[in-house]
Amino acid sequence: MYRVLEKVKSHIERNSELFLREFVELLRCPSVSATGEGIEQAAEIIIDMLKELGASVETYRDSGGNPIILGELNEKKDGTIMIYDHYDVQPVDPLDKWSSPPFQPRIIDGKIYARGASDDKGNLVSRILAVKTLVEVLGELPVNVKFILDGEEEVGSPSLPKFIENYREKLGADACIWEGGGFDRAGRSMIYLGAKGVIYLELIVMRRGGDLHSSWGTIIENPAWRLVMALSTIRNTNGKILIDGFYDEAVEDHEAEQLIRELDIDRADIDAMTDQAELIEELPNQELLRQWLLSPTINICGIYSGYIDKGQKTVLPSYAFAKMDIRLVPRMRPGQILKLLKQHLNSHGFQDVQVEVLNRGYPAARTSPKEPAVQLAVKVSKIVTGMEPLVFPNIAGSGPMYLITDILRQPCFSLGVNYPGSNIHAPNENILVEYFMKGIFQCCLYLMNFVPWIKHSDAPYLRF
Amino acid sequence: MYRVLEKVKSHIERNSELFLREFVELLRCPSVSATGEGIEQAAEIIIDMLKELGASVETYRDSGGNPIILGELNEKKDGTIMIYDHYDVQPVDPLDKWSSPPFQPRIIDGKIYARGASDDKGNLVSRILAVKTLVEVLGELPVNVKFILDGEEEVGSPSLPKFIENYREKLGADACIWEGGGFDRAGRSMIYLGAKGVIYLELIVMRRGGDLHSSWGTIIENPAWRLVMALSTIRNTNGKILIDGFYDEAVEDHEAEQLIRELDIDRADIDAMTDQAELIEELPNQELLRQWLLSPTINICGIYSGYIDKGQKTVLPSYAFAKMDIRLVPRMRPGQILKLLKQHLNSHGFQDVQVEVLNRGYPAARTSPKEPAVQLAVKVSKIVTGMEPLVFPNIAGSGPMYLITDILRQPCFSLGVNYPGSNIHAPNENILVEYFMKGIFQCCLYLMNFVPWIKHSDAPYLRF
Repeated sequence: MYRVLEKVKSHIERNSELFLREFVELLRCPSVSATGEGIEQAAEIIIDMLKELGASVETYRDSGGNPIILGELNEKKDGTIMIYDHYDVQPVDPLDKWSSPPFQPRIIDGKIYARGASDDKGNLVSRILAVKTLVEVLGELPVNVKFILDGEEEVGSPSLPKFIENYREKLGADACIWEGGGFDRAGRSMIYLGAKGVIYLELIVMRRGGDLHSSWGTIIENPAWRLVMALSTIRNTNGKILIDGFYDEAVEDHEAEQLIRELDIDRADIDAMTDQAELIEELPNQELLRQWLLSPTINICGIYSGYIDKGQKTVLPSYAFAKMDIRLVPRMRPGQILKLLKQHLNSHGFQDVQVEVLNRGYPAARTSPKEPAVQLAVKVSKIVTGMEPLVFPNIAGSGPMYLITDILRQPCFSLGVNYPGSNIHAPNENILVEYFMKGIFQCCLYLMNFVPWIKHSDAPYLRF
Repeated sequence: MYRVLEKVKSHIERNSELFLREFVELLRCPSVSATGEGIEQAAEIIIDMLKELGASVETYRDSGGNPIILGELNEKKDGTIMIYDHYDVQPVDPLDKWSSPPFQPRIIDGKIYARGASDDKGNLVSRILAVKTLVEVLGELPVNVKFILDGEEEVGSPSLPKFIENYREKLGADACIWEGGGFDRAGRSMIYLGAKGVIYLELIVMRRGGDLHSSWGTIIENPAWRLVMALSTIRNTNGKILIDGFYDEAVEDHEAEQLIRELDIDRADIDAMTDQAELIEELPNQELLRQWLLSPTINICGIYSGYIDKGQKTVLPSYAFAKMDIRLVPRMRPGQILKLLKQHLNSHGFQDVQVEVLNRGYPAARTSPKEPAVQLAVKVSKIVTGMEPLVFPNIAGSGPMYLITDILRQPCFSLGVNYPGSNIHAPNENILVEYFMKGIFQCCLYLMNFVPWIKHSDAPYLRF
């Protein structure tokens, strides 16, 4: 078995330049779902990649949104792995903070810089390349694989729920590898067993008519002030949400608490993992991890009103808005949270503050660490890295993973290629070439062992 | 004397097209002091106009800012009138709210639309044209006139204080006509005896590093939230300022209160005067006027943080700022108010909120209604309109009038050409052609009677 492993490894090494070229080709294509830029071209590149593997490919546009790509390699094996990734990316602004253009990928000091390098084209391509490697080395794939490739994850995956509902019978699988995952500064695998939920909305205050001279400020209300006053009732200076009932459903389970306690992490690890050492609040490690991973937030993504160019303009603005995301932990229901927010604004006298929901959102998701599919991920990562992995109850971010765990009822987890300095959603997003290659190998190992493991609790390619 | 008056009047009528052409030529020139656009060209046009009158013209750039133009017509008369106006204008945004391009003046239904039409090129040109009319009709000017024409009023007149200090001996005069002033919907003159003071500043919250994925919001503070929380401590929902000591110096005098009580104005007048009927708070008339004219404010002119384009971006912004003006009533000292604001932020735990002062500002100004120069303005306006004028203690807005009243120690007031629908500082700024012409006539009458009035309490050209 060891020989097969070595063959897989050396195949990846020999093909690394070719693999990088395929990756870079996709990174060159913008695919910003917020604006629609380059989405169709990115989808075409990916469809070609899948077809080259021998996959049957279908695209779904039932909701009129960006295509969802379903690629299937049905090898008539006794087990099926689902792989969920997305090919859309976040907008690039602030563009002036990038040291190289976000859609002209550059490799500097072993890192590939580009928008989407880590979120999520790195994982997407690495998993396609893992399948390719296995087909080329073994002659056939030892497991059935289904790719669901989303084109709207960065705008809240609006088409995905309908897709999952409508094509449920096509989407059966024994486990699902989710986007994300990576390695920490010591090289340990970071495995994530869930994701937070999210809601995205705007609070808007409008006044009839246009902007006015600011001397009216004594007798005409200022929408910017109204928005500020409304926002200030939502949260206190310690970050605690003041909406009645907000935390009622946010009760953590013992398994998640236990995973946090078991994380072999010191403050230097957290600093490296977050790459934001000086910014993070001073808290004991455990408390910091609990707050980071197990607490819900309401965040201001953007706020605008009136004159914001250089110099002075004395104006009473005609409108103001704030863009906000609300991140949910397991058991919080998005609809209920929205209802509570609206009730809060009304009961505090802010009937003039409109709540525009840009994304009705989705709940959090969580898979138990006891699931065999998760235990295999832990085993595989030990072989690849030589170290115990870090198993997190969930990522700090969100994703519609509940569609897999709660609708399709498959165990679901992340095992991937990113690293703590990836700058996800930020300027200078990047990925380490070394981890990209290691991730391909790790994915190969997982796919090779999956069927014997779930059928007979045996992992033949991990014995040597 | 009546014949002379008629001659002046018919001269204005005959020349009205020519006068409009001169006005429109200046309106075509942008002169936005916030950006510097077109300032020099506008100054040149005005210098040419003054030279055509026979004025001696000097420009001052001692502070490196936009030129201050001093135009003098020394007729060796027994009295001197100062005229203060400014040739700079506010920025034009939001541009999409204009029904015609702001620097392509259009006359529609008797109104001239252009940025600067009312603030302040209308008054500036009307006063130059009044002098021109008198020279042409009478053969000589019956009073000495000094024009101070500012190029930075809309950015807080930063060069003006030094100019006034340095050239004090050149700037002697018996009274000063200030920018602004106009007619109400019934055609009554609106005379203003003062202006509020103003400070312009930014509150800024910066975080080290760039924008981050918003999932960090649980353990890294959000500058937008910090700014919102800081702002919310400054004002309550009723508009009351919560800064300790803010109102201590804002004690109104009896003369101002008396002027408010004497204003013959009903709610319909206020609505017409403000042109914002539906927006204004429901208050008894007197209370509304007091709040409008005699109360200080802190206004949010603009606020910005993070992602404000269309769609969704889940980001933790790296900075946030608010642009604010503070309007001061008589006796409030700008330096003291800034000190109180900084103390307030510190004592409320907002040491991370930087106060960047864009304009250290100036205090309010007020001239007594008992001043002979004011009483002449009242008399003249009665002849021109056939009605008692409305005499306001001050405009609702600001201007560095204190330089005239407190430094040069001249009585100072506004008597001009605007009207309540002028949309000052807003899209579709405009002026009525009828009032522009009436204002020229009113200014002529004032200049003709000034010397006999202040010397002998006689107004020969008002007797008939």
